Amino acid sequence: MTTEIETPAVLVDLATVQANIRRFQDHAAAAGLLARPHVKTHKLPQIARLQIEAGAIGITCQKIGEAEALVAAEPSIRDVLITYDIVGAAKLKRLRGLAEAVSLSVVADSAAVVEGLTGAFAGAGSPLRVLVECDTGGQRCGVQTPEAARDLALVVAASPGLRFGGLMTYPKAGGAAQAARFLGEAKTVIEAAGLAVETVTSGGTPDIWHAERGGILTEYRPGTYVYNDRSLVARGVAAVEDCALTVLATVVSVPTPNRAIIDAGTKILTSDLLGLSGHGLVIGRPDIAIDQLSEEHGRLVSAGPIDLRVGDRVSIVPNHACVVTNMVDTVHVRMPDATVEVWQVVARGRLV
Amino acid sequence: MTTEIETPAVLVDLATVQANIRRFQDHAAAAGLLARPHVKTHKLPQIARLQIEAGAIGITCQKIGEAEALVAAEPSIRDVLITYDIVGAAKLKRLRGLAEAVSLSVVADSAAVVEGLTGAFAGAGSPLRVLVECDTGGQRCGVQTPEAARDLALVVAASPGLRFGGLMTYPKAGGAAQAARFLGEAKTVIEAAGLAVETVTSGGTPDIWHAERGGILTEYRPGTYVYNDRSLVARGVAAVEDCALTVLATVVSVPTPNRAIIDAGTKILTSDLLGLSGHGLVIGRPDIAIDQLSEEHGRLVSAGPIDLRVGDRVSIVPNHACVVTNMVDTVHVRMPDATVEVWQVVARGRLV
Repeated sequence: MTTEIETPAVLVDLATVQANIRRFQDHAAAAGLLARPHVKTHKLPQIARLQIEAGAIGITCQKIGEAEALVAAEPSIRDVLITYDIVGAAKLKRLRGLAEAVSLSVVADSAAVVEGLTGAFAGAGSPLRVLVECDTGGQRCGVQTPEAARDLALVVAASPGLRFGGLMTYPKAGGAAQAARFLGEAKTVIEAAGLAVETVTSGGTPDIWHAERGGILTEYRPGTYVYNDRSLVARGVAAVEDCALTVLATVVSVPTPNRAIIDAGTKILTSDLLGLSGHGLVIGRPDIAIDQLSEEHGRLVSAGPIDLRVGDRVSIVPNHACVVTNMVDTVHVRMPDATVEVWQVVARGRLV
Repeated sequence: MTTEIETPAVLVDLATVQANIRRFQDHAAAAGLLARPHVKTHKLPQIARLQIEAGAIGITCQKIGEAEALVAAEPSIRDVLITYDIVGAAKLKRLRGLAEAVSLSVVADSAAVVEGLTGAFAGAGSPLRVLVECDTGGQRCGVQTPEAARDLALVVAASPGLRFGGLMTYPKAGGAAQAARFLGEAKTVIEAAGLAVETVTSGGTPDIWHAERGGILTEYRPGTYVYNDRSLVARGVAAVEDCALTVLATVVSVPTPNRAIIDAGTKILTSDLLGLSGHGLVIGRPDIAIDQLSEEHGRLVSAGPIDLRVGDRVSIVPNHACVVTNMVDTVHVRMPDATVEVWQVVARGRLV
């Protein structure tokens, strides 16, 4: 199949995608968690649909533009959580428009963000559901203490056009227990203040198998699990065989016996290292390291003979699948019946 | 001007672009070098035209797709050098098509690549100009010795449909002298074998001001000089005021007194470090480091008060301008008369 595809190209194996979706959905069901996959990894309406058909209650997006593109393309997407502080008049107006098309939730971690949302949703037919984002150790966005979460929840609940929907976090890798403590304390003080905490949602594929029944979480938002990647293989979260996204590249030069150059550089693999050494895993060649990328070249080196010729093709599991998706206008999808379809990555490049 | 632009966004200051073009063109003229800018940095027909109007003899591209897009959009582009080993039937066919539209040169570093070119250009109206790529220390593509350059030049010269055009290298940073030695020796042995060496071309903005009259080079192919970036400022090649491309971002969260989060992450700034610490320079705030990026978030930290509020906007000089260009469908161009135009990045994402 791959000999007719011009390289470099992104290939997606749909049977592996379906198995990955099934495995997580089964785990979520066993753990008593609602599943709300983050679509940033695939940016494809077709795969969002598979996730929803498998039992996801809706999708997670980081950007309004991604949500707009996917909702327009896929009618089965009826429920969207945007896990991002939406700021600015133009975006707030678009948010209101999106809320007319789907059941919409957003997050906030400051009174300033809540104020913007209130202004935008004044007079809306139904209130916007707002979750309070908590910094449970990731040190990115989020309120800093359970008490601050309570205070902001009360601001949301008192704001016309808004409805307090619960708590959201993106934990640091390995920080599930720390996140659970914070969220548990926040839930306690919020309930003591007289508000219900409907949803407690966390995310991140690295800790995907650790969320258990009886914990504080009600919902989980994994993204990368749908494709997996070298970083997750390195963490022991997935096997190479579970990696559904690969980059197909062609050898364009073999300048020395131990070096080959491929036509995949940062313009498709990106510079993301995620703590790893090297820029991807060459399938079937554990002796090879991709030790250097420039924009259009990848350098393959081996301690032994590189044993590749100009024109040979290699398949690479990238360090980080999500960012690779964003580099391409289309992906080549190997369907379960072994035919290949070309799918437009409709939510690619939606920065705003 | 910038208050109406939705963030994150890429801004280009055209007066700075014009000054950068002028400065290099003047240097090239003084050094007796032909200028052939690499368009990967801007991917815009409008700026390619400014480069040609200023005296460039043509453009450099890495990918056929970039050349196709720019040639179709800008009639003043009449001469293209593709500094890449073109491999594979589909690409070779497109190369032949491109050669019918413009004066075209490519490179090769192996007999296998030359063989492919020969097959594609058999019976062409005029021969394809082929330069031999030399590895002068960059350890990417290229023949390994001056004698290997001669041997491949002889293969090119003996191939129907091809014409030997000279020598090409992309030196390692700081490797101009080493490159000159290799190229000088290669030219000597090739001339001794009876071939003329019309062009000796090198590139790279880091060494842009070191190419001097009387050296071995006849042509220079800088890319990043047109915008400049934080990596070039760090190397002392340009000043912050010479940086024409900036990323405009909005503060979406100020979780602690020393931390703010902006809506620009790797999806616009990329993970390219180029040896630097941190992910960009916040203009006017030397106390701030962008110490962490995720896909849609950038983390700003300061030893003192971060002194930013939700909704504030910041301008960032990225580590590497070229890769930022490839992340966006459009750029906002501040024209010399202070109006703002939105330009489509027509060669963005042209991977093949």
